[in-house]
Amino acid sequence: MSNAETKPILHSYYRSSCSYRVRIALNLKNIDYTTHAVNLIKSEQLTDEHKKLNPKAEIPVLFIDGKALAQSLPIIEYIEETRQFKPRLLPEDPFKRYQARMISEIIASGIQPLQNLNVLKRVGDEKKADWAHHFIKVGLDAVEKVLEESAGRYCVGDEISLADCCLVPQLYNARRFNVDLTNYPIMTAIEERLNVLPAFQKAHPDRQPDFPGESVAKA
Amino acid sequence: MSNAETKPILHSYYRSSCSYRVRIALNLKNIDYTTHAVNLIKSEQLTDEHKKLNPKAEIPVLFIDGKALAQSLPIIEYIEETRQFKPRLLPEDPFKRYQARMISEIIASGIQPLQNLNVLKRVGDEKKADWAHHFIKVGLDAVEKVLEESAGRYCVGDEISLADCCLVPQLYNARRFNVDLTNYPIMTAIEERLNVLPAFQKAHPDRQPDFPGESVAKA
Repeated sequence: MSNAETKPILHSYYRSSCSYRVRIALNLKNIDYTTHAVNLIKSEQLTDEHKKLNPKAEIPVLFIDGKALAQSLPIIEYIEETRQFKPRLLPEDPFKRYQARMISEIIASGIQPLQNLNVLKRVGDEKKADWAHHFIKVGLDAVEKVLEESAGRYCVGDEISLADCCLVPQLYNARRFNVDLTNYPIMTAIEERLNVLPAFQKAHPDRQPDFPGESVAKA
Repeated sequence: MSNAETKPILHSYYRSSCSYRVRIALNLKNIDYTTHAVNLIKSEQLTDEHKKLNPKAEIPVLFIDGKALAQSLPIIEYIEETRQFKPRLLPEDPFKRYQARMISEIIASGIQPLQNLNVLKRVGDEKKADWAHHFIKVGLDAVEKVLEESAGRYCVGDEISLADCCLVPQLYNARRFNVDLTNYPIMTAIEERLNVLPAFQKAHPDRQPDFPGESVAKA
């Protein structure tokens, strides 16, 4: 097969934090991929074509190794297990692996699902800002507390991991909802160290092909 | 150290589906443990003592190997990585491992967080039944579709996995909310095969030390 046939394709929306996590992971592993934009505002994830790829009608979907994979954390675990070259996306030590997954899960199941578009629509325009603030703050409070124990330069010690792939998109989201981040000195310092790295810069929403405006992301 | 010192302790609530997942996993791996009940109705998860163990103020928390672990899926991954004897909780094949994690994640991030006590309180008494029904149904629709491809006797082929540890508690929850399960023939058939197994029977909410009523769980 030619490279064009085997190159992974990521079904992504520029500001979806779940897509953003997978973009970072692919970049960290130096896996070249093509972006296929799915516009959530236009409900493109609800088409029969997309639902065939992901019955949950969500993004991201990653075409890789001849298969269509859904759900960001399982996608990243699959990438790591099938591409065991460095950099690792999970630490070697089992307890540190646990820490990376635990931080990721606080974000992926404890924050993001409660503030996604779909849920906020059901909450209603009047209440949605308060709702999102509440759940983002409760979740980030917990993450900051966990980082007191786990963090070094990054979320778990001095090695970048799955947890960092989740943290940066969640902080991007928190800013969209105008959450005050001054109470989170550890995570915002980690974010600063991550956001200067090419893998994170390339994955930023403003740098995606479907970003609608002028790029404001700075190197 | 004596066995009494090293025996894991699970901070659990009988009908918490996240606790239920970990109970199943521990039983499948034949790991003997002690239950420490945390009553969510009495908000015992909000005490300073509990928050020191889990800053997200949730259960389960598992004391094992001298550490307190939180978040059900990372706990189960840790158990599997540190106890690599059979039965495996994740298949050997990377794509099947992905499938097991993906089904688990649809439940753990796509359904459960949207119908837990904490969220339903915020939704309010008037709307909470409709809200829970909606999110449980959307999630289970997706799981059933995935199972069309992945399932054998169990969620992924013929081996019990992490996905089965998540499915059974989610169906228990769906029944509590009176969700009609007749549209889910694959998952309910799998559930039936799982619920006759000792590891699943012992983990059932009705068999927990903090279950308040007469046991109705039948072998």
